[in-house]
Amino acid sequence: MNTFLIKGDLCFSEDPYHIRLCPDSYLLCRDGLCKGIFPQIPEQYKDLPLKDYSGKMIIPGMSDLHVHAPQFSYRGLGMDMELLDWLNTYTFPEESKYTDLDYADLAYQQFVDALRRSTTTRASVFATVHNPATELLMEKMEASGLISCVGKVNMDRNCPDYIREKSAAASVAATEEWICHVKDRFRNTKPILTPRFIPTCTDELIKGLRTLVEKYHVPVQSHLSENFGEIAWVKELCPGAKNYGDAYDRFGLFGGDHPCIMAHCVHSDAEEQALMKKNGVFIAHSPLSNTNIASGVAPISAYIKGGLEVGLASDVAGGDSENLLHSIVGAIRASKLRWRLLDQEVKPLSVDEAFYIATLGGGRFFGQVGSFLEGYEFDAVVLDDSTIVHPQELSLRARLERSLYLADDRHIMAKFVKGNQLF
Amino acid sequence: MNTFLIKGDLCFSEDPYHIRLCPDSYLLCRDGLCKGIFPQIPEQYKDLPLKDYSGKMIIPGMSDLHVHAPQFSYRGLGMDMELLDWLNTYTFPEESKYTDLDYADLAYQQFVDALRRSTTTRASVFATVHNPATELLMEKMEASGLISCVGKVNMDRNCPDYIREKSAAASVAATEEWICHVKDRFRNTKPILTPRFIPTCTDELIKGLRTLVEKYHVPVQSHLSENFGEIAWVKELCPGAKNYGDAYDRFGLFGGDHPCIMAHCVHSDAEEQALMKKNGVFIAHSPLSNTNIASGVAPISAYIKGGLEVGLASDVAGGDSENLLHSIVGAIRASKLRWRLLDQEVKPLSVDEAFYIATLGGGRFFGQVGSFLEGYEFDAVVLDDSTIVHPQELSLRARLERSLYLADDRHIMAKFVKGNQLF
Repeated sequence: MNTFLIKGDLCFSEDPYHIRLCPDSYLLCRDGLCKGIFPQIPEQYKDLPLKDYSGKMIIPGMSDLHVHAPQFSYRGLGMDMELLDWLNTYTFPEESKYTDLDYADLAYQQFVDALRRSTTTRASVFATVHNPATELLMEKMEASGLISCVGKVNMDRNCPDYIREKSAAASVAATEEWICHVKDRFRNTKPILTPRFIPTCTDELIKGLRTLVEKYHVPVQSHLSENFGEIAWVKELCPGAKNYGDAYDRFGLFGGDHPCIMAHCVHSDAEEQALMKKNGVFIAHSPLSNTNIASGVAPISAYIKGGLEVGLASDVAGGDSENLLHSIVGAIRASKLRWRLLDQEVKPLSVDEAFYIATLGGGRFFGQVGSFLEGYEFDAVVLDDSTIVHPQELSLRARLERSLYLADDRHIMAKFVKGNQLF
Repeated sequence: MNTFLIKGDLCFSEDPYHIRLCPDSYLLCRDGLCKGIFPQIPEQYKDLPLKDYSGKMIIPGMSDLHVHAPQFSYRGLGMDMELLDWLNTYTFPEESKYTDLDYADLAYQQFVDALRRSTTTRASVFATVHNPATELLMEKMEASGLISCVGKVNMDRNCPDYIREKSAAASVAATEEWICHVKDRFRNTKPILTPRFIPTCTDELIKGLRTLVEKYHVPVQSHLSENFGEIAWVKELCPGAKNYGDAYDRFGLFGGDHPCIMAHCVHSDAEEQALMKKNGVFIAHSPLSNTNIASGVAPISAYIKGGLEVGLASDVAGGDSENLLHSIVGAIRASKLRWRLLDQEVKPLSVDEAFYIATLGGGRFFGQVGSFLEGYEFDAVVLDDSTIVHPQELSLRARLERSLYLADDRHIMAKFVKGNQLF
């Protein structure tokens, strides 16, 4: 099933600075892995099934490193505040609805359907504090054919009663129970530890979650240095931590011996950046969210140049769309305004860099994912850009560039995850 | 034909700070004008035709105060430079193609078709220096049913030979010939004087165009204070002008006795702002363009507060989309980053302000346009937002807000210009 040739106009990142273009070429997918690109069908593969998308663009599937499934319901709404007020006014009331499994069933299905139709093939997802709804979301993600990590959220302080877990111990126990329920249940959907962020997690909770990392070898995701008010609050809450990142790291919840994603990193100082680099922490860059709730703009081209791990994220519903094409454009635009308004030392993101973080940069969190280089898992999206009218012949490079700006789900005609065709 | 009742969920600006919501209401359109909103059908109108869009949103048509028709072909491309390099590298070579009427026919039809499908009902359009292609564009605009001003561009210096007019006198003569050809030819499509910008227009040309303002009472459009390099260049070119705006004004081409649109106004100083206010110059705010080619962000909420005339613009192809919904969101986002990164004295744009500049703010250039208040011309777009899934009941206000972020041409089910139904 997962061995075939696919033909089309291939576009993929080789590294942060080079998009490789292979017009009218054949890619061999063997057992779900990329095994070579050829201008013609090699003799030894002539009997393999051929998926012929001649004239269409084939790009790697994208990885959404940070997305809140329960917030999909209010995407495009309530972006008139900064982070901390926004959480209390919009987020917590909405997330509390997921005690109701009927509501969760409806809302999560809408989220998963939209993600399935998008360019995303992998995702790292926040659910809510509720175990049953989180398991329901995982069932739906599994059924979608996408590959994902999904996290039950932990919160034991600084949030309303109706959504706060009763104690650190209760939160850790519920998390362990959930991990045991789900860790071997799905092929493509895995648990990820998800302390919301330092302000809502006591030291005791962070320490407790560390025991689960050691026991179950689960990855970790959280938020980091998104907003000035948040950062000041963390400093107050954790006077012993050297910086926000260290508030996780001092208890062993900041990468190093486990895979770790930190969303935002808008205002990380040099020390925090060095710690992320040392520990291999993945930065989930969320440009639309950081713009919509006026957090700022992370210096992404500098992070890439500095060798940090950077992926892209929709961050629904701080971000208003699950469509990572919009986030690619949002990342480029935000970087240009950062350059113009704040700091000409950090260059704007190029198209190549923005495409890279959406595909190969974030894909690295999931293994050899996000490119068509030899040995990479074959995640792909086929784009039919023929309905984006133009009066002239365009190069493949130009077709790719404009599609980042102009394409939407209408232009996605096929999608593959690890060689499995979703549609 | 243009007298009817229309029913739906009405949303429109009363002023920059208030969107009025009339759910499930009837609007009377008489001879193309708005003549009242009613909760039920008044007895005296019960025999009028009823256009029933129950459950759909009806919003005013939008005015695009600045869009380059010949640049539509490269929207989404070539945004890796700032203005002056961008013009030389991408714009001028593309615009030179419009000597070829077959090319113009194909490319302009694609532009007009896209504009017709969008939320735009009025537009102020740049063509190229070429008279025949500009007239062809005007024919197409007229056939579309949209209402517009279209300008043959003037350039007699600082641009490549292949697109430069031979002299100021030749440029003025060609412009007069064009005005005489088109001024009484169309019902909905009118000529507008279009000196590209000061760097490409000699004083002699500006003076010559002033004679045409006096003779034919035509409006004027141009560019102003978009980019630092451009502004410095204007200072060099016009040492006698007090500021960039004065380089137009000292020869009478900056509003006052004629309607005038100036695109961008990103870096206008207090004196230039005062001159715009005094002369009633319309600012065409082009947030996507100003972001894409890294010009900066105009302080729009301050302009509105200061009583300046502000409308919205797609500025294709500095802007990548003719869809003004994208520009509304772009304006809000850019204003948030301006606030965060540059200047907390100027507040981010609210949804109400951004919706206002797209509808009533820019509509004012065309008369009583851009609202459903009594006496306004009935330009309207009917949005079917039912396919934007959500798990809960939403208020009309919430439906409108999210549609600005999430809707596209798929959601536009009907469109009216001055009471004429386009589709």
